[in-house]
Amino acid sequence: MTMEAERVLREEEVGQLAELAAQLRVDAIRCSTKAGSGHPTSSLSAADLLAVLISRHLRYDWADPGNRGNDHLIFSKGHASPLLYAVFKAVGAITDQELVDTYRRFGSRLEGHPTPALPWVDVATGSLGQGLPVGVGIALAGQHLDRLPVHVWVLCGDSETAEGSIWEALDKAGHYGLRNLTAIVDVNRFGQRGETELEWDLDTYRRRVEAFGCRAIVIDGHDLVAIDDALGRARQATGPTVVLARTLKGKGVADIEDQPGWHGKPIKPEQAEQAVEALGGVRQIRVTGPRPEPVAPAPAPDRRPPELPRYDKGAKVATRNAYGDALRALGSRADVVALDGEVSDSTRSDRFAEAHPDRFFEMFISEQQMVAAAVGLQVRGYRPFASTFAAFLSRAYDFIRMAAISRADIALCGSHAGVEIGADGPSQMGLEDLAAMRAIHGSTVLYPSDAVSCAALVAQMVDCTGITYLRTTRGGHPVLYDNDETFPIGGSKLLRGGGHDHVALIGAGVTAHNCLAAAEQLAGEGIEARVIDLYSVKPLDSERLLDAARDTGGRLVVVEDHYPEGGLGSAVLEALADLAVPAQVCRLAVRGLPTSGTPTELMDQAGIGVSAIVTATRALLARTS
Amino acid sequence: MTMEAERVLREEEVGQLAELAAQLRVDAIRCSTKAGSGHPTSSLSAADLLAVLISRHLRYDWADPGNRGNDHLIFSKGHASPLLYAVFKAVGAITDQELVDTYRRFGSRLEGHPTPALPWVDVATGSLGQGLPVGVGIALAGQHLDRLPVHVWVLCGDSETAEGSIWEALDKAGHYGLRNLTAIVDVNRFGQRGETELEWDLDTYRRRVEAFGCRAIVIDGHDLVAIDDALGRARQATGPTVVLARTLKGKGVADIEDQPGWHGKPIKPEQAEQAVEALGGVRQIRVTGPRPEPVAPAPAPDRRPPELPRYDKGAKVATRNAYGDALRALGSRADVVALDGEVSDSTRSDRFAEAHPDRFFEMFISEQQMVAAAVGLQVRGYRPFASTFAAFLSRAYDFIRMAAISRADIALCGSHAGVEIGADGPSQMGLEDLAAMRAIHGSTVLYPSDAVSCAALVAQMVDCTGITYLRTTRGGHPVLYDNDETFPIGGSKLLRGGGHDHVALIGAGVTAHNCLAAAEQLAGEGIEARVIDLYSVKPLDSERLLDAARDTGGRLVVVEDHYPEGGLGSAVLEALADLAVPAQVCRLAVRGLPTSGTPTELMDQAGIGVSAIVTATRALLARTS
Repeated sequence: MTMEAERVLREEEVGQLAELAAQLRVDAIRCSTKAGSGHPTSSLSAADLLAVLISRHLRYDWADPGNRGNDHLIFSKGHASPLLYAVFKAVGAITDQELVDTYRRFGSRLEGHPTPALPWVDVATGSLGQGLPVGVGIALAGQHLDRLPVHVWVLCGDSETAEGSIWEALDKAGHYGLRNLTAIVDVNRFGQRGETELEWDLDTYRRRVEAFGCRAIVIDGHDLVAIDDALGRARQATGPTVVLARTLKGKGVADIEDQPGWHGKPIKPEQAEQAVEALGGVRQIRVTGPRPEPVAPAPAPDRRPPELPRYDKGAKVATRNAYGDALRALGSRADVVALDGEVSDSTRSDRFAEAHPDRFFEMFISEQQMVAAAVGLQVRGYRPFASTFAAFLSRAYDFIRMAAISRADIALCGSHAGVEIGADGPSQMGLEDLAAMRAIHGSTVLYPSDAVSCAALVAQMVDCTGITYLRTTRGGHPVLYDNDETFPIGGSKLLRGGGHDHVALIGAGVTAHNCLAAAEQLAGEGIEARVIDLYSVKPLDSERLLDAARDTGGRLVVVEDHYPEGGLGSAVLEALADLAVPAQVCRLAVRGLPTSGTPTELMDQAGIGVSAIVTATRALLARTS
Repeated sequence: MTMEAERVLREEEVGQLAELAAQLRVDAIRCSTKAGSGHPTSSLSAADLLAVLISRHLRYDWADPGNRGNDHLIFSKGHASPLLYAVFKAVGAITDQELVDTYRRFGSRLEGHPTPALPWVDVATGSLGQGLPVGVGIALAGQHLDRLPVHVWVLCGDSETAEGSIWEALDKAGHYGLRNLTAIVDVNRFGQRGETELEWDLDTYRRRVEAFGCRAIVIDGHDLVAIDDALGRARQATGPTVVLARTLKGKGVADIEDQPGWHGKPIKPEQAEQAVEALGGVRQIRVTGPRPEPVAPAPAPDRRPPELPRYDKGAKVATRNAYGDALRALGSRADVVALDGEVSDSTRSDRFAEAHPDRFFEMFISEQQMVAAAVGLQVRGYRPFASTFAAFLSRAYDFIRMAAISRADIALCGSHAGVEIGADGPSQMGLEDLAAMRAIHGSTVLYPSDAVSCAALVAQMVDCTGITYLRTTRGGHPVLYDNDETFPIGGSKLLRGGGHDHVALIGAGVTAHNCLAAAEQLAGEGIEARVIDLYSVKPLDSERLLDAARDTGGRLVVVEDHYPEGGLGSAVLEALADLAVPAQVCRLAVRGLPTSGTPTELMDQAGIGVSAIVTATRALLARTS
């Protein structure tokens, strides 16, 4: 045990902490009242917890937020941003003026909920139940990869424990024995519209936490000595700790303390002035908390291009296999890590796991936690690849959305796309994923048709910024490309034709193959069809579309193994509209609810098989000639 | 207690149950081996559980699956469909031939994972962790609304307990005291790619279940007497019960029983033949289990049109308020129920809750459970409306996707759409929801611009089939329509112009107002702009678009408070492409990552405010004139 943890607080120190807590309360009130919105009461309940944490336990160099020896502080209850920003003032990271004058204003980095626009904020929070799962990922990196004495402190609300994701997180924290993770739950017993489900039933919280493999410490969240003792014990624990702090919402302000109806409401100016006065007025206390231990800089990642797998042209190889092969090869870079939702033998991430077991994290069937862990791992500089069935990434859609707001750089792979999977039926088919992933801010969406292009794209994903999504196919389809071809993100491939073709057939993934077969058949009827492999769905190769529209009189057939809304066809239409290119686009997509069957039966049923493409092409030509 | 529960099984009865269990095993093997795919081993582990359940506890009239006195049987572990279909054969619901010859074939209703294509299947399963949450919804309906002695039996896998949604479900089962709900967990200790996280640690399972407010009964899942006793006790319990059954995966087949590497693999024909022989060969036992108690038919819902709220034209009313008002009015129908994710004072579903407290279910902050409960409630004939922030419905995207496969009729309301919400920042802004919801199979997507149209649409949602999504706005905007106007789903409104306009401005929700203001400004410059309120995003009013394109020389400006991919603009482009209507569509959407600010500041920043529309319109006209 360190000295801090052993030593009981002197009376004078308790007084100083109380002063700091009062300052945090005063500042949380001031900034939210000035802004006219925000969550002062949810800040007041946790002020004592934070006063002790930042003064005596959080090891952080505020002048150097990139220091890899720093602890991590995450506000899972992101709506308590007035408290977080009051902390930033107290440690000297921001000025009192910035706090009070800019909170929640247009152009300010002090947004309503914290985002990494602030250098001391690792991830955006505000969608409840996400900060702790992300903290698990950071703790995994710190303990299992960096092996550094950094600690992850996560302030949680009590309401958010109703989210299953909190229990996924505690379960994984216990499973991975994350002794560097402490969740502090601010049990103020009020949610947004009234009492929480468990109110102050601390014993039930304790039993839940313990059953999920974590140590629970129950305290009075306004007793500074008890808080100090709990946080000290948490840092020294041999596993993850959850400090369950019984608190009062609005603590410190008469008429508001422990009252319902005050969630998310700023205090009116006059009442706020009285409250500030009652709390002892405005202070400018500057806290100097513990410093991080000096640590060596991270080793520079080996950026040599990986030895990518090679495939024989014409051989039938599933792109999911190429994902596994390429990911394994990419593992030559020590910063590449992989996660899977207990289906690694299907997604083929098991090929990475076999080669690099120390950098593979089994998340079992908890896709939310898987994505959150990926976000946490990238906070500490790793390049995570997380995989499951495309259909099941939808389970983590809110986490992916928030990851984009966190400016996280993560690679996601969704296997078993579309009706092509066959007999397993619609519950296992990713049919909304292109629409959902394209709509994520700043995302990249890739859907290769063969193993060579898939491997080449995986190799590029490692250096992409933002959310990068790769869609892979279950079945084996012929390798189309030479091993030395390049596949830039934002590019496409001309698979057939290229002169003055009658029509262009545009596919990606499995439908590129169907387009090729259809073109062959159409050629027999004297119809020359250009075939384009649009492997980069976002960004899209507008140039190629422009050429195709120009050369074919604007006759395009887009074929996708996806529902008709928001997918490949829509991406093509959006690009053409933005270029103001006139075209006649025929979209073939999965319009009914699929069933079980063989891939060919299901693609034919859905109207995206070879004969459907031939028929649609003939009709388009008849209509436009 | 009933007689069944008290009476210990006679030896002869145990023998009969063992014979039935053997038949279920044999049939699970036969159908999956014949299909060449499927999950026999996950079926074998649970065969004894099901043999006892269907013979002695499940009260079900197999000839009348619509009987509202029937118990409910849900396979949360949907991949064990061979066992479920073997059950259907044993009770005489399907023939042996259908089972063995059609399982997983194209055109068969015996799909790889169960769907309501079968009349005895309430909901589709196959995305793990969803059957139990849906079961909670069914149990809520049975116990709290119907007040009938129907029991809900859910077979869960052990792997799926890693999903947080399982714990959301047990938490709500405990909270609502659902004594009519029994989860049977088949703890066979193997997941897809190896051991589960907890393997056979039944004690940890027990502690988790109990901490979450449910009774746990731990048994040997192959001991027929113990199973019978546990299920009998579960039926008589005063709260929800979880039967934790220790089982062997592949039970009953030598060389496979309790072996890894057998998940999701059919047994090869020769080995299957030996296994069937070892199990005593093919049987044609016909089970007659307990019958449901006779119950009165459901009262016919009061289908008189509700007394919708009325608004003054020009008054500023938020559409979220209109949602709450209309929902409250709709509560005159006794089959209308509402759920919320602890934000009812924001979504305004609290207005329903106040008027109809018995039909409002607080789900606290568990959006997955909220949607699942809605699905469960509609299984028993109710018309659920579930609401939270649009951004947070993304948390339940996999549940919404599965609800569509379940052919569920549910209404969802997402409030706080887009940057219009202002200071709370991007974590609270629904900006991907139109894309995500449009991509759901068979969905309806509505986005009204004013209170009158919102209320009219809410009134229609109650009778919609499939997933119906309503997007509402936080702030108050002027009422645009007279109270007696109609707003058919699939329609739109002409807000301005209609002759030979120079351009058409197309908006929905808040952007309809921005388009109106822009048109006013453009009129001052001599530019006549038609303004269209596209309140029905899916289905879309193609006719109106056709007219607008024709009358304006194809000049359309589409403005949306949503990211540029897959939303309103894409919907318009898709419709125009499908109609083969040439047009020059300029799309204005939220292209950057928003921050905090006022609604106007943020809409201007995003380029969807009035001046952006004016500028874009001028540019479009300059480009195309």
